[in-house]
Amino acid sequence: MDKLKERIRREGKVLPGNIIKVDGFLNHRVDTIFMEELADEFAKTFDISKITMVLTAEASGIALATICARKYGVPMVFAKKAKSDNIEGGLYQSDIFSYTYKKKVTLIVAQDWINANDNVLIIDDFMAKGYAMRGLIDIVNKAGASLAGIGVAVEKGFQSGGDSLREEGYPIRSLAIIDKADENGIVFRED
Amino acid sequence: MDKLKERIRREGKVLPGNIIKVDGFLNHRVDTIFMEELADEFAKTFDISKITMVLTAEASGIALATICARKYGVPMVFAKKAKSDNIEGGLYQSDIFSYTYKKKVTLIVAQDWINANDNVLIIDDFMAKGYAMRGLIDIVNKAGASLAGIGVAVEKGFQSGGDSLREEGYPIRSLAIIDKADENGIVFRED
Repeated sequence: MDKLKERIRREGKVLPGNIIKVDGFLNHRVDTIFMEELADEFAKTFDISKITMVLTAEASGIALATICARKYGVPMVFAKKAKSDNIEGGLYQSDIFSYTYKKKVTLIVAQDWINANDNVLIIDDFMAKGYAMRGLIDIVNKAGASLAGIGVAVEKGFQSGGDSLREEGYPIRSLAIIDKADENGIVFRED
Repeated sequence: MDKLKERIRREGKVLPGNIIKVDGFLNHRVDTIFMEELADEFAKTFDISKITMVLTAEASGIALATICARKYGVPMVFAKKAKSDNIEGGLYQSDIFSYTYKKKVTLIVAQDWINANDNVLIIDDFMAKGYAMRGLIDIVNKAGASLAGIGVAVEKGFQSGGDSLREEGYPIRSLAIIDKADENGIVFRED
């Protein structure tokens, strides 16, 4: 998506440790109007008319997933990290390694909110090694639900999480894939 | 807001420890269409035309705040909890006690995304003792920004965070105030 790439090029910052910061419009301050354009873009790839829910992981995926879900007219469910006192009863769980926190975290979704009749579109703001994404897919599978697709705003292509999932046949659309990011700038993969 | 009260009465669950669970439409599975009705309701109370941003705290406030921000045509900023490697440079911080996690957490907003020219509408899904809300107000003050108002979906009136803020003159609108919740059901405060 050219407009997203332009925006990353203009506003993104590359920090040491392969961190690409786009927190001015995507995941700290969120440009809610622009998020709707991303939602429209995902709708060109996936059959939105057949999805029953959008699934994401807390916290930074929630804003984009919410705009997508509102646009498609379905509920948004976010997987919580670790166990909170406010969740009772049956849970689907998946242990993942968090790249952000550098430790193991558990993604949880209450069994009340995803089931075998669901056709799930997973949405996330970022994908690097794909650990969180694997956790979300695991939860969809544990619930016996169908996976309609995986939509990612920014994929760090050089960390290969997306390529692994594509090789395994998962239907992924990443709106911008960054193949290289260093002091010389950002190189995007061709669409 | 009668429709919200009806929905809490119909779908809410009261758990031991004064926990009121409405995670089927508000803060785990999110009814994104209904959230827009809440956004319309806040717009009756506050002068939306003058706000420059919606501010909330991660994670459960993000969905409602995003829908509100989209509806009002402004960005949504969420205060992050604790320090993540992905945030560099100047931060506004406020230490709060988290009722959910039973420990101190630090709310942080990058100084890049809030400043003295901002007129901020704070939105959150829940308010109990008001600790998170105090942290968000503190950040607005530290940034030298103006506070346009505070919109809360569900206030636990019996935990008095909202009443304290009202006594201090803060402009708060809670769409449903719960004055009692036990095995006999939920009692709402009259509008």
